This record gives sequence, structure tokens and C-alpha cells, in this order.
Amino acid sequence: MKCAGQIETRAVEESSINLDPIQAAGRLTPEAMKAVIAWGDGYSVCDNCHKPFRLDYVTKPPIADFHTEAAAWLGMDKIQLVPGARRAFQEVTGALVGKGEPVIMTGMGHYTAYLSVEVVNGVVREIKPTPDHHITADATAESIENAIREFGYAPKLVFVDAVDFMYGNMHEVEKIAKVAHQYDIPVLYNGVYTVGVLPVDGKKLGVDFVVGSGHKSMAAPAPSGILATTDEYADIVLRTTKIQGDITGRKFGIKQVGILGCSLMGDPAVGLIASFPRVKERVNHFDEELKNHKIVTDALLSIEGTKVASEYPRKHTLTRMDTAESFDIVAQTHKKRGFFLSSALNKRGITGIMPGVTKQWKFNTYGLTTAQAEYLADSFIEIAEENNMVVG
Amino acid sequence: MKCAGQIETRAVEESSINLDPIQAAGRLTPEAMKAVIAWGDGYSVCDNCHKPFRLDYVTKPPIADFHTEAAAWLGMDKIQLVPGARRAFQEVTGALVGKGEPVIMTGMGHYTAYLSVEVVNGVVREIKPTPDHHITADATAESIENAIREFGYAPKLVFVDAVDFMYGNMHEVEKIAKVAHQYDIPVLYNGVYTVGVLPVDGKKLGVDFVVGSGHKSMAAPAPSGILATTDEYADIVLRTTKIQGDITGRKFGIKQVGILGCSLMGDPAVGLIASFPRVKERVNHFDEELKNHKIVTDALLSIEGTKVASEYPRKHTLTRMDTAESFDIVAQTHKKRGFFLSSALNKRGITGIMPGVTKQWKFNTYGLTTAQAEYLADSFIEIAEENNMVVG
Repeated sequence: MKCAGQIETRAVEESSINLDPIQAAGRLTPEAMKAVIAWGDGYSVCDNCHKPFRLDYVTKPPIADFHTEAAAWLGMDKIQLVPGARRAFQEVTGALVGKGEPVIMTGMGHYTAYLSVEVVNGVVREIKPTPDHHITADATAESIENAIREFGYAPKLVFVDAVDFMYGNMHEVEKIAKVAHQYDIPVLYNGVYTVGVLPVDGKKLGVDFVVGSGHKSMAAPAPSGILATTDEYADIVLRTTKIQGDITGRKFGIKQVGILGCSLMGDPAVGLIASFPRVKERVNHFDEELKNHKIVTDALLSIEGTKVASEYPRKHTLTRMDTAESFDIVAQTHKKRGFFLSSALNKRGITGIMPGVTKQWKFNTYGLTTAQAEYLADSFIEIAEENNMVVG
Repeated sequence: MKCAGQIETRAVEESSINLDPIQAAGRLTPEAMKAVIAWGDGYSVCDNCHKPFRLDYVTKPPIADFHTEAAAWLGMDKIQLVPGARRAFQEVTGALVGKGEPVIMTGMGHYTAYLSVEVVNGVVREIKPTPDHHITADATAESIENAIREFGYAPKLVFVDAVDFMYGNMHEVEKIAKVAHQYDIPVLYNGVYTVGVLPVDGKKLGVDFVVGSGHKSMAAPAPSGILATTDEYADIVLRTTKIQGDITGRKFGIKQVGILGCSLMGDPAVGLIASFPRVKERVNHFDEELKNHKIVTDALLSIEGTKVASEYPRKHTLTRMDTAESFDIVAQTHKKRGFFLSSALNKRGITGIMPGVTKQWKFNTYGLTTAQAEYLADSFIEIAEENNMVVG
């Protein structure tokens, strides 16, 4: 058995163009990398923690300022740092959903959203995606109506994926929020592919919660993320502790119950904050990301039989390709079978596409330069030509 | 307003002897520091994630092996990586404690333990500490009996602090576990000051859960920790998801509900594993840590009026001093008031003691060399002499 402590160095981001759908927008900025090195010790952020002893009051490093700025940036009233978006989901379900109570979830939701309902013993009722993989306000209304008929009362929460992980499609959040609010149901905007990637304004969207992922889309170390909410729901979801020791009489100040106090310390917190100025800037240039992305999808679409399975034209850099009638046909007779594609890409210094898969596969070009996008486009064409596929 | 992204470099561990009670055993090993640099990107650990797609099955980096080794090391059947000990507490209360149900907690428990009961709407009933700040099996039995009378059934869980954060005292866990088991109540061993610091054998202790903190005592980045349990309780607390989409029929494999899937990625996970060989080794040398600690307490006790508020002789390197009749008397007339002590220490490159406090204060010498302990001892004596205190 290999000894658990023997860790090889990871150099994926240095040695390759990494197309991994979940990794592209999470790779650290140089600023985050420096912060990670300097703040790696876990309780580093507690060096200057004074009364009232809570993470979001720490001014050195500037965690307090970050909370203020990030809330404004998202058009929300309050934010909280959390160890991953899933913790934000759980914090919201924990506060709003009781045993056996229904939650509306899109059929394209992430597993952690489903598990955040399961962990509080809630019940999921899905919104049916359209045949072209979209979640609509109409389907949301139908799902809510069905749940009311089934349970006799309105669901406790609606989860909406701004951009889903399956197709990278963009869903009509604003309309969905309007529908949910007609039933007085709060709306959680799952922005793990949008917050830190493109502009997000929770107020304009009319949502009650905005959840972002640090390691997925904010160039921050894992596990990290943000829960943003309104003053109205902050009182419930970010409520402070009331418990008291029955013998000692001990109380615990203003620690927040839903997240069990200060839950994000050390380099994930400081790294996220260090990347924040650059992240705030980059969301304004998402059009350039889409231009680079188009260079690659155009090349792929020039290979006969290749389709974009996601909505098209693309509104996000995470895309699902359908190559059942192109690369997959090659795979059927290639000596490397389905692995020929990832293998040919790897040879060219390209990684992050699931090895062995040639029917449908996802990739994300977020953060690539135009030169890298062109190299990528050329590589796909070359691989197609090497395998006698028709290009043009 | 200072811009949130402007992060100054932290150099506390490089520039000072750091006595911060919660930081001493968490500072990174060189191995963890290297891992942090190479694995800082959040989803780095997912590069080689294959079916069944769960963190503890990843073999590169050797996360799977770590799970096996760490479970054996703690004398338990199964472990799970968690983003901080509090998440382990919550996972256990979430699985075992219902609304309004009682949990036995020591009156010296950490706030996160209390909040882990509050977050599931449970009720805390405390074990009364002895006047000399110990938790005993007798007091535990009394607390359990009282709870049974009050609620009509046995409490759902007993939390025990192996070493508490208030005094660094060691409590009779083995006897307490025996008592709890007489009532069929499972026992959670809170080992945040022991796991990674001194030998811990959950089987010998007869406990059902062992919780350790990565950033507190395992030389790992935050947030990180371990939940260890038995096969019996793994089925409940580490249960896998059963939820299913009502329209899509989607299921989510073997993801664990209580922790919402893979909850510790990136450098906190890899850093903890990288430190593990050294951590396994260092727990065998805790006697040397105590010897170094004694050099410092001996010096402090030689200053007239100074007492150790913790149990004595010391069994842990986290100690509470009572200097109400020594340093605090100086503080009453010193121009820097209570800050004279931390200020004088800082001048000597010593940090981590709460500034301004001279009545009772805590420090932790874990990880110091003998030379550093001697320097620390000399420094306290010097400060006392500078302030005309009687030493001898």
C-alpha cells in the first residue's frame, strides 16, 4: 500500500490547458496563490479577532470589508462566507424546511441541492425541464400548483439554477422568481456557475438568496463559497444563537446558528478575498470569454456529425457537445476505443475532458486566452483529420 | 475604506514564538505547506475521480489510503474528512437528535458543540464540572438521570471533551463512556485538542465517535477535520443518499447525506494528508512536549503570586494561568495597564496571548523546541523582574 502521506505535486494548470467543466473558473489567481502561501495556517485569520468574536467582524485581513463589498456587488443586503455552496444550501433548507415539507427543485439541479433537502428530511418536487433542457416559469408554476394540491400548502423554497451543470444553459430566473413570489415562496438562486463569472444582481432578479461557489467560480481555494440574502431572510437564515447552558448559564454571543459560528477560516477565506478585486473586474468581460468559446465550438461544429447539445448560440462557456455521430463513430473501431479522444488531446497538452467518453461530453473554456482557444480549435480539427473525419 | 482585496502577508509563525492556544498544533508542517502550494486549486483532488465518484475513493492523491490508515490509527472502523470538527458534530446531531430531544454536554464544551444541538432544535443538558474543573463519570450519570426524569427517555447523545478548551484539563472519557453505554447512549469524543497531538484509541476508550480538528491539532489548513465512527454508527451517520427526483427519477449514487457528498476538497484535504505521517509520529512524543511545557510553567510559578489555574501537574500543553495576584497587580499601576504583558512579550518576539488580559490567560507551547521553551521561561522571569515582582 502506498503511504497516505506521499503526495505528488499537481501541475495540471501549469502544464496543460484544462477544460474541466468544474475547474475552469476556480483556478487561483496569482493573488489567491500568494494568500494561500501566507495564510495557510488554519487559524491565521483569527490573529486579530476581537469582540464580538465573529469572522465577519475581522478587519485584518479585511474580512469585514469584504462582506460589505460582496453584498453590494451581488445586489443583496447581507453575505456570509461558507465552506462551499452546499453549506449555503443546507443553511437555507435547515432554516426554512421541516420534515416532510416540499421544496421545488429544477430537474437539472446539482446533487448537493437535492441532498440539502434530504438532510433535513424534506421532500423534493421537481420542475420538469423542457425537451431542449430549459427550466421555465410556466413549468415552475405547474410544479408549485401540483405540490400545493399534494401537500395542501405552498412549498417552502424554490431552488433555481442560474446556469445548470448539465448543459450550461441559462434559465429564466427573473420570471421564475416572480412566479414563486406570487405564492410567497422564497427563491434560492444557485449561482455556482455565474457568481464570479458574469454579472449577477440579486435585487434585479428578485431572488431571496444568492449562492456562489469560491472554488467553482471565484478563483478561490476549496471549500469556499458565499451565501447572500436579504435583510428579511437574514433574520431567519443567519439568525444568532439563543441556546444557553442549563447549569453553567453559558451563552454564545452573536455566533450564527445555521453555520455553527465562524466556518470559513484560513486560506480558503483569504484566498477568496484576495481574488475578489480581479473577480469583480472579470465578470464585466464575459463577452470576451464567449468570443473565445465560439472559436472552439465553431471548430467543433465544422467536424461533420458534431452538434452542440447545449442551447445555441452559447451564453456560457460550459458546453455539452454531442459527438455521437462524429468522434463516437471513430471510437467504435479505434484501437484505443473511446479513449482515443482524451488521449489525443492529452498529447497536445489539453486535459479535463472525461477520458473514454465520446458520445456526449462537457468542457469549459473559461479563462483561456484567445491564442489558447485557437490552439484548442486547431487541435480538435487536427484530431478529426487524423482520424479521417470530414471537416469543413 | 480599505479595499477588501488588499491582503497583507501574514508572517506570525516565521517571526514569532506563537503561544495562541488554538493555533499551536495546527501550524502547517513543511509537507502540508508544499501540498497547499501544489493543490491550492479547489477541485484539484477531483482530477482523478472515477466511479463511484466519491472523495474517499480517490487514489491520486492517496485520499482512499488515508481514510483506511486514519481509521486504524484512531482504533475506529470508518472515517470521513469534514470541513472542521463542528461539521462532524452537526453530522452526528443531525443523524441522532430530533427536535426537543436532549443531548448531554459537558459544561466545558465548545460553543460549536452547543450550536450543533441548537441547529437541529435539540436541547442541551449539561454535566456539572467539579470545582476543580473536571468532568466526571459520576456527574455524567447524574446528568443522564436528571434528563431521563425530565424527558421520560434517555438522552440521544453524550458529548465528552477529551481535553477542554477552557483549562486544557483531561477528563475521564473511558469511565464516562461506560456510564453512557449503560443507558445505551452513544458517546462523541471531542478530540480537537488530542487527535494529532497525543495517542487516541477510540476502541480502548469505548466511544462511538471520535472527532478531530485538522486546523487545530493535525497541522492542516482550515477548514478541516475528521469524523471517525464504528461500523454500527456508520450505517446511520455516514448513510448514503436515498432521495430521488420525482419527475426525472435521478438518484445520486453513494454520496453521503449527512455531509452532502464530497465536502473537503483542495488544499485542506491534501494538506491534512500530507501532514499525516508526521502527525502519526509526533503523537508518540507528547511526553517531550510536556517536558518543554514544564520549563515554562516552572518559570511562571517561580513568580510570586502566580498559579496554574488548570489541573497540575499538567497533562496537556494548553494551560490556563492565574496571575490575578502577580501580573494583574502590576497592570493596575502600569501605564500600559493590562497590555504591559502582551506588549513586553511582543517585544521579545512572543505572540498569541490575549492582549490586555492579566488575570487569567491561556497559552499553548505545543511544537516549541526546548530552546524556545527556555527562552520563553527566561522572558517571563525578565518581564517579572523588570516590573519589580518577586521571583524565586
